[in-house]
Amino acid sequence: MNIEKNILFRSVSSELESVQEHLADQLPLKAGSLKEMVKFVLSGKGKLLRPALAILSGHLTGELKNKHFILAQITELIHTASLVHDDLLDEASLRRGQETCHLKWGTKVSVIVGDFLFAQASLKLGEIENTEIVKIYAKVLADLCTGEVSQAQNRFNLQFADWDNYLNKSISKTASLFSAATQSAAILNQQNPEIVQKMFLYGHNLGLAFQIIDDLIDFTSSSEELGKPALGDLKQGVFTAPLLFAIQKPEYKNQLAQLINSRFETEGDLLTAQKLISDSGAFKETLDFAQGFISKALTALDGFEDNIYKQDLKQIAEFILQRNF
Amino acid sequence: MNIEKNILFRSVSSELESVQEHLADQLPLKAGSLKEMVKFVLSGKGKLLRPALAILSGHLTGELKNKHFILAQITELIHTASLVHDDLLDEASLRRGQETCHLKWGTKVSVIVGDFLFAQASLKLGEIENTEIVKIYAKVLADLCTGEVSQAQNRFNLQFADWDNYLNKSISKTASLFSAATQSAAILNQQNPEIVQKMFLYGHNLGLAFQIIDDLIDFTSSSEELGKPALGDLKQGVFTAPLLFAIQKPEYKNQLAQLINSRFETEGDLLTAQKLISDSGAFKETLDFAQGFISKALTALDGFEDNIYKQDLKQIAEFILQRNF
Repeated sequence: MNIEKNILFRSVSSELESVQEHLADQLPLKAGSLKEMVKFVLSGKGKLLRPALAILSGHLTGELKNKHFILAQITELIHTASLVHDDLLDEASLRRGQETCHLKWGTKVSVIVGDFLFAQASLKLGEIENTEIVKIYAKVLADLCTGEVSQAQNRFNLQFADWDNYLNKSISKTASLFSAATQSAAILNQQNPEIVQKMFLYGHNLGLAFQIIDDLIDFTSSSEELGKPALGDLKQGVFTAPLLFAIQKPEYKNQLAQLINSRFETEGDLLTAQKLISDSGAFKETLDFAQGFISKALTALDGFEDNIYKQDLKQIAEFILQRNF
Repeated sequence: MNIEKNILFRSVSSELESVQEHLADQLPLKAGSLKEMVKFVLSGKGKLLRPALAILSGHLTGELKNKHFILAQITELIHTASLVHDDLLDEASLRRGQETCHLKWGTKVSVIVGDFLFAQASLKLGEIENTEIVKIYAKVLADLCTGEVSQAQNRFNLQFADWDNYLNKSISKTASLFSAATQSAAILNQQNPEIVQKMFLYGHNLGLAFQIIDDLIDFTSSSEELGKPALGDLKQGVFTAPLLFAIQKPEYKNQLAQLINSRFETEGDLLTAQKLISDSGAFKETLDFAQGFISKALTALDGFEDNIYKQDLKQIAEFILQRNF
């Protein structure tokens, strides 16, 4: 694990190491070369943020059980599987600072590796032996598809550039898995519905803020910083918070709409759009918007006893606003 | 439904109609065009054999419950999802007598449609609220991947042309889902382990026979009869029972190995191989081999009361040997 992770999840760093080890080791693969590919994908410089949420939420809501480790693994396996298929759909070339599975081995391997990771997640979901959690994670799988489809179908379509679409897509693509991890950790501790709901709200709002900041840094960071090409969303006609804030302003709307409708014929068009969005003040508004969700996430933690796990969960929320990870 | 299905599953034809209706109608898709694609894929002239096994096994082992319908849907959704991804991996152009999803809409749509169908199956698996069944179906998902990987990695490799590999692959690709349906139907009726095991053995052996006959008719039927290109396995270097029987014979081994190692340079090479395999008597041996599994499947039904459902399950087993469906 790198230093950044140790700072963020210091109270559970050894647990996370164990989660990561078991991610790859328990894959019962006879087939030699696929095992290598799956290991490559799982060894990317992932942040382990999602498994950390499962482990920290397990600690916060009671006793950390073996099933919390399985929950953490499921969460990371589903996340990685969806990245592999998304990269294929987006024809992405870089992810987590390394070549994507898609670029390195092509479409077919990406399909199989993604399916395999989803299947592994399902096997581990069976091990948890809790039908409520099965339902929650099945919903996550459906949400991930719906999010991806909605994004793919609405590309470059300004008719769908509204907040409802954006937030629903962000819930489906991101917040759903975050809240599944935090909520299920409380369920594993047999917590009452009120506590489960608080943990859901923490994960849900954290996930929304995470996605909004993710969308912001796609505009404000370099490809090197991102570990993937910058301005990717805009280039592909995926409309996120910064653009939505900018086109609300009459003085930017027409010019932005024109660039979008011409689908950014040149690299210059893309940079012009970026500058317009920047000039409009949308970046600050996006940050404030994310801050709103972070506040809600922190409020959800209010009733819990103050301990190192709560401190880490609060710190994660705060780091998300300053994140370049 | 067509006449063939009515003959085969006459005791449950109305139940199967209900299964098929709900397959497509319960998909909660906002996204218009994906819904169409998913419906297209689900509307293929599928045989509904797997859902029929779930329904018939439900009747045979007790009372048919609503959850048996859900089980039938899950089984068909997983089957269809795996076909969509397999067709993409195999670059197949025809399936169930119609264009494949892959040919019609391309790779990306196939990835999403397959993922979506898997996710739908997971949602319905959650509805069943039975952790034993969740585990069984999670294992099916893993098996499907392992089977596909094993097949892809061993193409044209005569070192892997042995019965162990062939049977393991056939269990993973086919029998696993068959036995999941028959076994889980008994579990839903709270049957004792002995009955559950019998239903497992029925499905397992039926699935193996089904796959063996499937592999046989790939050699003996025309593309029109198959609804997909004939000699597909051989052409792709996938070694199935007919070839395995033929290369056991010293007088055919060398010439077949030569054709395989040259990867069937011409269409003529492929037909030469087909003729050699036919001359070797392997087709009859393959049929006998499948017959052995059918006998085991029928034996598994021995202890059950004789009723229309048992008659249909026996008839399915017998039809599989004469099948052109």
